[in-house]
Amino acid sequence: MTSAQIDSSATRTNQYRVPETMKAWVLGGPEELALLEKPVPRPGTAEVLVRIDAIAVCATDIEIIHHGVPAMIDGELPFNKGFTPGHEYMGTVVRLGPSVDEFQVGDRVTVEVHAGCGRCPRCREGMYTSCLNYGYRAKGHRANGFSTDGGFAEYAVNHVNTMVHVPDDMSDAEATLVVTAGTAMYGLDVMGGIIAGEGVVIIGPGPIGLMGVGVAKALGADPVILTGTRDRRLAMGKDLGADEIVNVLHEDPVGAVQRITGGKGVQYVLECSGAPNALNEAARMVNRGGRICLAAFPSDPVPVDIAYLVRNNIYVFGIRGEGKSATHRAAALMAQKRFDAKLIHTHTFSLEEVPSAIRYARERIEDAIKVVVAMR
Amino acid sequence: MTSAQIDSSATRTNQYRVPETMKAWVLGGPEELALLEKPVPRPGTAEVLVRIDAIAVCATDIEIIHHGVPAMIDGELPFNKGFTPGHEYMGTVVRLGPSVDEFQVGDRVTVEVHAGCGRCPRCREGMYTSCLNYGYRAKGHRANGFSTDGGFAEYAVNHVNTMVHVPDDMSDAEATLVVTAGTAMYGLDVMGGIIAGEGVVIIGPGPIGLMGVGVAKALGADPVILTGTRDRRLAMGKDLGADEIVNVLHEDPVGAVQRITGGKGVQYVLECSGAPNALNEAARMVNRGGRICLAAFPSDPVPVDIAYLVRNNIYVFGIRGEGKSATHRAAALMAQKRFDAKLIHTHTFSLEEVPSAIRYARERIEDAIKVVVAMR
Amino acid sequence: MTSAQIDSSATRTNQYRVPETMKAWVLGGPEELALLEKPVPRPGTAEVLVRIDAIAVCATDIEIIHHGVPAMIDGELPFNKGFTPGHEYMGTVVRLGPSVDEFQVGDRVTVEVHAGCGRCPRCREGMYTSCLNYGYRAKGHRANGFSTDGGFAEYAVNHVNTMVHVPDDMSDAEATLVVTAGTAMYGLDVMGGIIAGEGVVIIGPGPIGLMGVGVAKALGADPVILTGTRDRRLAMGKDLGADEIVNVLHEDPVGAVQRITGGKGVQYVLECSGAPNALNEAARMVNRGGRICLAAFPSDPVPVDIAYLVRNNIYVFGIRGEGKSATHRAAALMAQKRFDAKLIHTHTFSLEEVPSAIRYARERIEDAIKVVVAMR
Amino acid sequence: MTSAQIDSSATRTNQYRVPETMKAWVLGGPEELALLEKPVPRPGTAEVLVRIDAIAVCATDIEIIHHGVPAMIDGELPFNKGFTPGHEYMGTVVRLGPSVDEFQVGDRVTVEVHAGCGRCPRCREGMYTSCLNYGYRAKGHRANGFSTDGGFAEYAVNHVNTMVHVPDDMSDAEATLVVTAGTAMYGLDVMGGIIAGEGVVIIGPGPIGLMGVGVAKALGADPVILTGTRDRRLAMGKDLGADEIVNVLHEDPVGAVQRITGGKGVQYVLECSGAPNALNEAARMVNRGGRICLAAFPSDPVPVDIAYLVRNNIYVFGIRGEGKSATHRAAALMAQKRFDAKLIHTHTFSLEEVPSAIRYARERIEDAIKVVVAMR
Repeated sequence: MTSAQIDSSATRTNQYRVPETMKAWVLGGPEELALLEKPVPRPGTAEVLVRIDAIAVCATDIEIIHHGVPAMIDGELPFNKGFTPGHEYMGTVVRLGPSVDEFQVGDRVTVEVHAGCGRCPRCREGMYTSCLNYGYRAKGHRANGFSTDGGFAEYAVNHVNTMVHVPDDMSDAEATLVVTAGTAMYGLDVMGGIIAGEGVVIIGPGPIGLMGVGVAKALGADPVILTGTRDRRLAMGKDLGADEIVNVLHEDPVGAVQRITGGKGVQYVLECSGAPNALNEAARMVNRGGRICLAAFPSDPVPVDIAYLVRNNIYVFGIRGEGKSATHRAAALMAQKRFDAKLIHTHTFSLEEVPSAIRYARERIEDAIKVVVAMR
Repeated sequence: MTSAQIDSSATRTNQYRVPETMKAWVLGGPEELALLEKPVPRPGTAEVLVRIDAIAVCATDIEIIHHGVPAMIDGELPFNKGFTPGHEYMGTVVRLGPSVDEFQVGDRVTVEVHAGCGRCPRCREGMYTSCLNYGYRAKGHRANGFSTDGGFAEYAVNHVNTMVHVPDDMSDAEATLVVTAGTAMYGLDVMGGIIAGEGVVIIGPGPIGLMGVGVAKALGADPVILTGTRDRRLAMGKDLGADEIVNVLHEDPVGAVQRITGGKGVQYVLECSGAPNALNEAARMVNRGGRICLAAFPSDPVPVDIAYLVRNNIYVFGIRGEGKSATHRAAALMAQKRFDAKLIHTHTFSLEEVPSAIRYARERIEDAIKVVVAMR
Repeated sequence: MTSAQIDSSATRTNQYRVPETMKAWVLGGPEELALLEKPVPRPGTAEVLVRIDAIAVCATDIEIIHHGVPAMIDGELPFNKGFTPGHEYMGTVVRLGPSVDEFQVGDRVTVEVHAGCGRCPRCREGMYTSCLNYGYRAKGHRANGFSTDGGFAEYAVNHVNTMVHVPDDMSDAEATLVVTAGTAMYGLDVMGGIIAGEGVVIIGPGPIGLMGVGVAKALGADPVILTGTRDRRLAMGKDLGADEIVNVLHEDPVGAVQRITGGKGVQYVLECSGAPNALNEAARMVNRGGRICLAAFPSDPVPVDIAYLVRNNIYVFGIRGEGKSATHRAAALMAQKRFDAKLIHTHTFSLEEVPSAIRYARERIEDAIKVVVAMR
Repeated sequence: MTSAQIDSSATRTNQYRVPETMKAWVLGGPEELALLEKPVPRPGTAEVLVRIDAIAVCATDIEIIHHGVPAMIDGELPFNKGFTPGHEYMGTVVRLGPSVDEFQVGDRVTVEVHAGCGRCPRCREGMYTSCLNYGYRAKGHRANGFSTDGGFAEYAVNHVNTMVHVPDDMSDAEATLVVTAGTAMYGLDVMGGIIAGEGVVIIGPGPIGLMGVGVAKALGADPVILTGTRDRRLAMGKDLGADEIVNVLHEDPVGAVQRITGGKGVQYVLECSGAPNALNEAARMVNRGGRICLAAFPSDPVPVDIAYLVRNNIYVFGIRGEGKSATHRAAALMAQKRFDAKLIHTHTFSLEEVPSAIRYARERIEDAIKVVVAMR
């Protein structure tokens, strides 16, 4: 850091007065969220303090608030611990922890969830979302809004590894969608990632599925086929780049894929529905040697035709989160306007209205897809 | 080819008089095998004629003879078509088809099953066991003993891609086991293949599982843990290199793996049992981000805890056969005496006794593991 | 193939009367090309006969015509053998060899160069452009315009593996550029292929370099930096998607890359210039752990700072041709109008004018980039 | 950590009294090493204090002491900064920094060099030896004996990521060789790592080359060919598992490889000699599509035949150090007695005799290969 940089950073720091306390939604018992005053956290080494400007509601937030799952370390539930949920946020860097020069005060950033411990075998090979020290803060692991405080608040601390710069011409609301697109990107990455000209089916037009359509098409997949039950969401998928959409209420999805591909099937399926039979259907959508990524799941065990997977040399990739810096790649495509992520942003609320935001997302009121809480 | 080579080859060719007809077991209806006289086939371009010296009985042979599965192209069953089953054979090259210089008359060879079409997208990327033209002989695909005549006979034609040289000091019987070891090797390959120092669990001490123990240990995996129900087979696994064996009749296999690994779990599981709950157990044996290869399967759909796979970022690889030239690598390890494959060879019969050989294998008479038919 | 398909194919076949002989440019001694009458070749198994509609001139054609290099098998030179050069062609399928159903008579296709033997270790792993039986036609290898007759003629035979469908709205001339874009795509593939948001430098705005710009930008690379000496070509690179262009006559290219990337360097360099110092410069453009693909080369050995490569953990990938089906991926991006390949097509000639076409390409008359010979 | 563990650890801690100061060799100007009294360092978070029990002399140590290269961050040289060199050491854990439970006091460990920053793009993808923050201690990077104090001393601090457990039956001296074997392992890894049955040439029978022989043979490579100029070292290579050795003073190494492989060449070359023509020779040892890893380098630029690399689709991997946890895999093979690393340990000195140890290593007195400084 040159002294000129330091000066400039000091000037900027003065621009952002950070109070001692902040408003934050805190989880009491299941479904009990309260807007409380809480100390503003301080960034440690390799961390920054982010003033939160916008945050989107994710289905997992709703799960955490309701069931506490996915459980934190050692099966502990997050209830009555002063925990603030929320992980799909973006904002402005207002303080730098020691040694940070990757970001400057004033930078607009959006976040991904996981900072791995950096010292387990998984982190050592770059698979930080599968950190074997998940939840151990003392060992360095952080998962914003999962095992550490998240973004339904005015401020949050973030490790530099969990942040991506936001370009000036991307709105706050759009920037909250980067992590969702990053999850879809990771799903395509783990299946091989080189998909230009290959057929890709996306099952389930939820936020990850719709972003998956945008990313897959941006990377040149062809055809990109989206299956689902809601015409409005399917139409949104079309706007995001799907070559074909299939409403499974009107056509068997496996038959539709075979029809569209002239009986060849596709190379890749990104399963984002969590439907009980989705894996079996996906297996029949891919050709021999095809690959399936599971980004969603049914809550209970379901019957799976394993013989079909083995006989057809099919690989199945369960993914947790948005690893391998996929968020950076998704952000790059969005910055280049390769697809219009904003289409899935349907509703906006204020910080005070978080319970309404969550209700809209959970109950899909007015067919809500992405509900965003905007702070300014 | 120099003229000296041609002379030598000619001399050798004269050594191997090939008759017009041969004895071959031919499949009539289900379970109907008859030893008939059949024309000796002629090798085409890139093919050779192999005089079969030994062949092992595989569980899949029994399936084919009984159910006709896995069905040939277009769902056709192999019954009453003059089909000769059997794919785990070795022998001596006695005639060369046009353009062959990879092998010489007199060479001892063992075989793998699949010669891909070489022209579909899968073959073009080297995944010839997942050939999209499976069963189309006109397009070049051959699967010995599956879609083309196999080795329960005196002679068989083989594409050069399906053959591996056998060193002088490897017996005929041992050489029939190369393809089984190759399947295990392929299973380890698809999971990443770099396993020195990593924990590997092999579920199921059948032939593939036991060869998997040998291969995994030869490549430096540690610990190699074998689970099963039969003490004799488990003990054989120990002799093949397993660091730990677990009889699941006496100890829960997931608990045993956690005990042995100090709660860490392993990185890889090679599932060779086809047991209904094997995938769910495998998922709980691996650590987060672990990998499972399915080399066997239950015949019917079984409940699978997909949520566990997704939340733990687990990858599952179904494999068909012994692709990616894994048979060559397995043969290399066996040639270097890295493990003693002969241990699993338990019984020997003559060509005339094929029905007995099959019966021993199917009913596991005298705890038969690998039953070999030796021609000389 | 259903009988309806056969009928339709028969009808189409009748549409394309194929004569017994054709006009073809034939190579005598070095630089001696003559337009002769030659028998129209017949397609064998897995081959088709293509009526050539357009062909572009490649620098390698000029090399072959002048020096005979790269030499054919066994060091044989292609002179006075009745050889027809030319490999960047496209056309219409007019006859199908036995077993072909991947293409129909009447299909418009463009070609890649290499059909591997399908039986060497390289082909078995999908690296068919590195076929170990290069030039052995008896073993199945074919390299159009290199080891087998090429496209400066009215007709040519092609293996199905070397063909890609051309969409209706892509012109003949544009379709001849697919193989060039495929080479650039292969270069990006071998370096990892997942480049969204990563910096890529392309050295050398020749045809491969310019197509590399288009492909890299289509896949989301950012920034894409093109370096060269000719402003007109650099401007063309800008139109093809380059974020930055650097004329190395006016700015040191290494310094420019460091300037543009804020001192970070890029992740990937695709070297397409063959300049003597290009590898050393590329090494200083990438960051530690970066990757360089060499798609061009100086004719003589040049000094290389190997110590720099080793100390900075740099990987260098020499590529031959357009392997791993990269041509299909490039064609898919072009079919989706992701970049305008037509920009590099500068001149057009007729079949009779091939010598002029070659002269324009060789001497860069009127700054010719891609010179196309159009047959209709 | 259970309380029982804590007690046990406390007891062990008491066993190892750690003084305030220690003896350490400190680098003054070039070639000026002095044995001084220095404070014993304290382990920070994720670090331990290691009592050094043995350390081997590496050629790089000699370079650092003489030239200061490879230069530390920002081109700074390590002279007159109180720096202690030495990186091939092993010892006993005597103190745990905060949050460490991967190791216990009393554990015997050996070390690898690099702890990456964990926050640059390279570290995030697991390439920590190519850390883009090399030398920035404030950002977490440490390279023992390069950018932070090393092991020619009584104690050294180590990040947990740089340590591997040593089994009881491995001697101190042998354990110092793990990092050398790890470098060879990394070289094989980056070339693909799946080498059973493949031909591998090792150029240069120095410590890395000889360990490369051991590792390659342990993983089933065949043939393993070692080339060099010193018969004694070549014979040692034979004892370590080389199938063939070639003294290049008596036979051209390229010709020898072609002779041994029947003209086929090998798939992989691990170049450990740094000889000026080694890369050109390696290129002619591999077959088309082959791979070369450069683990050594000539100090000045040398002529390289780039055209040969490109035309033959050869990949060249420069490696820095021993990344991707290769040290763990090498240690696992050594723990399993797959090769006898001890063979290359030729001389032993005491801490006071470090200058003699270095002299023996540098001048190859009595053909010294690995010179070890043993502390007890």
